[in-house]
Amino acid sequence: MRIKALKSAMADVGFDAYLVTSATSVYYFTGFLDIRDAPVTLIVPVDQEPVLYVSELSSVAARDEAKNCNIKLVRMGEQFPNKILKELSMLRVRRVGFEALLTHIFLRLSRSLKDVRFDPNADLVWKFRKIKSDTEIAYIRRAAAMADVGIRTAGEVLKPGIRECEVVAEAEYAMRSIGAEAFAFDTIVVSGSRSALPHGSCSTKKIQLGDLVIIDLGAVCHGYRSDITRTMVIGKPSPKQSRIFNLVLNAQERAFKAIKAGAKAWQVDAIARRIIKRGGYGKYFIHGLGHGVGLDIHEPPKLGPKSKDVLSKGNVITNEPGVYVHGFGGVRIEDTVLVHKNEAERITRSPPELVED
Amino acid sequence: MRIKALKSAMADVGFDAYLVTSATSVYYFTGFLDIRDAPVTLIVPVDQEPVLYVSELSSVAARDEAKNCNIKLVRMGEQFPNKILKELSMLRVRRVGFEALLTHIFLRLSRSLKDVRFDPNADLVWKFRKIKSDTEIAYIRRAAAMADVGIRTAGEVLKPGIRECEVVAEAEYAMRSIGAEAFAFDTIVVSGSRSALPHGSCSTKKIQLGDLVIIDLGAVCHGYRSDITRTMVIGKPSPKQSRIFNLVLNAQERAFKAIKAGAKAWQVDAIARRIIKRGGYGKYFIHGLGHGVGLDIHEPPKLGPKSKDVLSKGNVITNEPGVYVHGFGGVRIEDTVLVHKNEAERITRSPPELVED
Repeated sequence: MRIKALKSAMADVGFDAYLVTSATSVYYFTGFLDIRDAPVTLIVPVDQEPVLYVSELSSVAARDEAKNCNIKLVRMGEQFPNKILKELSMLRVRRVGFEALLTHIFLRLSRSLKDVRFDPNADLVWKFRKIKSDTEIAYIRRAAAMADVGIRTAGEVLKPGIRECEVVAEAEYAMRSIGAEAFAFDTIVVSGSRSALPHGSCSTKKIQLGDLVIIDLGAVCHGYRSDITRTMVIGKPSPKQSRIFNLVLNAQERAFKAIKAGAKAWQVDAIARRIIKRGGYGKYFIHGLGHGVGLDIHEPPKLGPKSKDVLSKGNVITNEPGVYVHGFGGVRIEDTVLVHKNEAERITRSPPELVED
Repeated sequence: MRIKALKSAMADVGFDAYLVTSATSVYYFTGFLDIRDAPVTLIVPVDQEPVLYVSELSSVAARDEAKNCNIKLVRMGEQFPNKILKELSMLRVRRVGFEALLTHIFLRLSRSLKDVRFDPNADLVWKFRKIKSDTEIAYIRRAAAMADVGIRTAGEVLKPGIRECEVVAEAEYAMRSIGAEAFAFDTIVVSGSRSALPHGSCSTKKIQLGDLVIIDLGAVCHGYRSDITRTMVIGKPSPKQSRIFNLVLNAQERAFKAIKAGAKAWQVDAIARRIIKRGGYGKYFIHGLGHGVGLDIHEPPKLGPKSKDVLSKGNVITNEPGVYVHGFGGVRIEDTVLVHKNEAERITRSPPELVED
């Protein structure tokens, strides 16, 4: 069904063939998930059965899992672009769209097949992938439930003197123990002034009484990812910490109420941004409000000041306002949210509390 | 020093400017490590100071860490390609090399600056990155020591009935507890017939007495990665399991003895491949013998039948023969290896034993 829909969209834009080039999109269309950055290409001719090129290394898994396509192997020492060239030559195509190609491969293809026009067009894939099916939503819900366990565990083990990496160890252990097949991204635990780094990973720094601690993590279920962030303080928060926390929480809650099918992504972002700006921290909210989540951790639609996206039923997005004050610390509160027709649903469910009881 | 060397190499091939486009290469040249897949670009003019473009999100970290460059921010809603175009226009360059660009960005740049020639050339970066400095080797050694702890822990917890994901949980917990800032890749624990999948991640499958179990993991230290695989059996291995294990181990050991500066990568691969072929399992060794490891998990040089690489002092590579029999299971034994002038050094040090005592 997905391939049929893709072919129909290809016909609409005039592609004789389309190259699906990411492991996650290949999984979406065939059911076979190769490792990240694996060289894998699904060639979809508009009027014939698709051909999946996988490395010999992935042959057993592909044969077990890939549906709706012929599988052909790229053996050791053979080159993917050569195989694709040969296949396209046989197809006698004139216009070929593709999801994403590195330039040297694009040049290789377009210089070898001079009468074929190659057009980058990732939207063709995202058009489908950004609307999640019930099955996909069920997997994301399970990944979200695992992430909630990670957050709860992190909150439970937080105490003065524990190292950032030890908190990560406990949270990840809890997620793995209930079946997380992988993590959605490198888990982040940053504390004290390090909490002002939105992407700070974790260090061996000991967490102190009074530190702001940002915990940002996610799990993977059947390839689908979740994403949640909580900010906590061990002990009694300072008035400034509480003020920033409440501001960010208010921004998140108000934005949440605006999320539904038909909402403009930039307007949802603007709601959160206005609140943080009025609270005096506008210049410290240095990223967009959110992003789509699915097989990839950062997908369309994008929620930001210049986004042109409009939300649709079935989008799964993050809602994650943040304030980062260099030298002081940061606060981010993030949930994974499902877009319904007239409302939004938080599918990560951990309570957003600054102080762990 | 690294930037000076890069400029000299640029001059040799006639580039007026070069775009360093991966987060890991930007870290290599500036000391600032952004998250994977972050939009970050270091523009290196051949005769001026480099300019680092980072998203506003990464501004605090970049200002703390990036050396030898001017930092310019790409603010929310601004587009990286526009910034790069503007910078290149001011530089009045004619020939620009780049590490890697997605095609739509390449087309954007080359169509906007029609009198500039843009050439993909990742080798310019790898030429330097594949020779590790003493500091880099020290970090990889630490990452390797963490991976050894992960392997030892996995071996200790293996017992009939434990789930693959629980073994992962324990191994990762041990690595995190000693300061792993991240994992080198998604940890793999595959057992029984699943061990025939070279990239099988992990599942909730319970490991049984007599299952072959492949454990493949790595840790990250200051951005540098390690990579190790061990294959174990709980209980008494079958004669066939032992035979395959000894064959793979023999192949690995014989290949190891051939690793030194000046060795041809394809010849090292051929040594291992010949042994496995003579043992009757040639067609089950479905991948190259190894790959470089560093800031990325798969780097040059490549060890495989058609590789043109020649090993150099300071290369860090994997040595990982494997045999995968569909329906039966697999054996892979992998170490991270440092190339010296006249010999090789195993820097992952776990003993390769089929049976955990």
